[in-house]
Amino acid sequence: MYKPATIKDIAAALNLSPSTVSRALRDGYEISAETKKTVVAYAQSVNYKSNPNALGLKNKRSYSIGIVVPELANSFFSQAIAGIESVAYEKGYHTIISQTHDSTERESINVNHLANRSVDGLLISMSSGTTDYDFLTRLNKNGLPIVFFDRIIDEIDTFKVTSDNQSGAFKATGALVGMDCRRIALLASAPQLSITNERLAGYKEALSHHHIPFSESLVRYCYKGGSDYQEVEDALKELLANTDKPDAIFIGSDSISICCIRAIKNLGLDTGGIKIAGFSNSDVVDLLQPSIIYVRQRAFEMGKIAVEMLLKLIESRYPITEFETRVLDTELYCP
Amino acid sequence: MYKPATIKDIAAALNLSPSTVSRALRDGYEISAETKKTVVAYAQSVNYKSNPNALGLKNKRSYSIGIVVPELANSFFSQAIAGIESVAYEKGYHTIISQTHDSTERESINVNHLANRSVDGLLISMSSGTTDYDFLTRLNKNGLPIVFFDRIIDEIDTFKVTSDNQSGAFKATGALVGMDCRRIALLASAPQLSITNERLAGYKEALSHHHIPFSESLVRYCYKGGSDYQEVEDALKELLANTDKPDAIFIGSDSISICCIRAIKNLGLDTGGIKIAGFSNSDVVDLLQPSIIYVRQRAFEMGKIAVEMLLKLIESRYPITEFETRVLDTELYCP
Repeated sequence: MYKPATIKDIAAALNLSPSTVSRALRDGYEISAETKKTVVAYAQSVNYKSNPNALGLKNKRSYSIGIVVPELANSFFSQAIAGIESVAYEKGYHTIISQTHDSTERESINVNHLANRSVDGLLISMSSGTTDYDFLTRLNKNGLPIVFFDRIIDEIDTFKVTSDNQSGAFKATGALVGMDCRRIALLASAPQLSITNERLAGYKEALSHHHIPFSESLVRYCYKGGSDYQEVEDALKELLANTDKPDAIFIGSDSISICCIRAIKNLGLDTGGIKIAGFSNSDVVDLLQPSIIYVRQRAFEMGKIAVEMLLKLIESRYPITEFETRVLDTELYCP
Repeated sequence: MYKPATIKDIAAALNLSPSTVSRALRDGYEISAETKKTVVAYAQSVNYKSNPNALGLKNKRSYSIGIVVPELANSFFSQAIAGIESVAYEKGYHTIISQTHDSTERESINVNHLANRSVDGLLISMSSGTTDYDFLTRLNKNGLPIVFFDRIIDEIDTFKVTSDNQSGAFKATGALVGMDCRRIALLASAPQLSITNERLAGYKEALSHHHIPFSESLVRYCYKGGSDYQEVEDALKELLANTDKPDAIFIGSDSISICCIRAIKNLGLDTGGIKIAGFSNSDVVDLLQPSIIYVRQRAFEMGKIAVEMLLKLIESRYPITEFETRVLDTELYCP
């Protein structure tokens, strides 16, 4: 019968103590580089595999990761979760998902619930209304590894990954300028969101780059971020009622892009003269009518990077104090 | 590593015995009101939650519900989850979600993982490939309440809720007949899925009702259920290469409907002569081009009913032995 090699077998073969072998395999700092090399080489030669269950008992890991996102119905988040799971499963981690529906209260309940179900770490994209981060700071200080993705915050020092929203908006607005548009309106999401301001900055940057003056009268905020169709339709009607009508609209959010396309259809607007560009990760944005130029965030890749960051925190034997914030490029699609 | 606060930690901090703390938290009569107040306040400040496993042993509730679905990116499931949460939150229950990506192995891992995290009950929509239900039967026999929704199975006797797929297909096919179509093709999902056969039956029933002979040459199965675009494009091309070309296509699945619209666009097909109807719960199906007639399942309501059934099982003081299977009507939309 096949018997897998154990730490004891390796120790006996190399005339070392089992604890030395164990530490060498775990890359312990108290073991010399030479011993580590010898132990690792021999362990490989006898096809040694650490017992994952024993590992679980010893480190008290649950091998599960909590994921908290604002909205599962949003394609961006389901794509990011797919990216997270592609890495997590491969590394033997399970995922538990919960959504906040952009409610601060629900967010704090979900996070505490996951922490108390002993997840090894947390991946979170913040709810739009949250301004008090105490519930996260406390858990993080008590040793719960947390990585922020997409909607990140400055207040907690850890690994973060998000999109380059400013350059995405710059590219999309620039594409509209390239199509000879000069009066480019902006339909923006709620002004308290960091992504709103980053996209506004990219829009302004592109205008300035092309020597087009910025005009406040061409900007409308949708405070409900596209969850309220009527708000978007009203904003669109206001923009189009402008004495000097816009020749293009740049839309700073996925849900607002969809609402805007729906409003154009419902209002029976002739979009021949108006070009539209917007952020969207919808899987079917290329099939929508009227068609739009769209900026796509690399959601799947963002999920992969976020979970790799989290696993680094979970699996590190020493406290990590140097953190990185990755900013991913966006992709522009012109139909 | 994050370590949730324990009774011992609280006892040490307050200079009380662990049993006093435990009794205070359980509102035991032998503890003074003042001590209880102190203990409860401190427990809240350190975010103390009683150990979910210990709770399970005492047969107390965790007030959390596990949800297992094939695919979060599918609008139907995100709508059903929204329905589940609308009731669960109101009743003070938390939800934990996981997706199986239609993998039987992942499904069994997820279900066991949730059960071991002591959820009070489970809502599950089965993965398409699963044929061995032992892992569910065992948990159910051991007292875990389970309710099936959408993709239900016969093998376990409990509450279930699903859509009337047959009448949905009957209505959609009938609408095509009403538009003077006579050679109506069927693009169906994998034949081992119960919904595929129910929708096939509705399609056949409508043909028979209108005295149109059923022809096997007008049926194509997409074994990968729309997860493989090329398979759908090939099936569509085959149908259109038929000597006696169809004048309509009925599509028996959401993902295949979307793939088919994309294929028509990619192939530059003239759809002037061909009417299309399909199942779809996409939030933007009405904005897609070419536009289609679509059958919508009442996903949100299904989620609400499923969780109400589950709460009945969880909260019943006596074992329930009489179960119900609810079958919800679908809605037909003609653009």
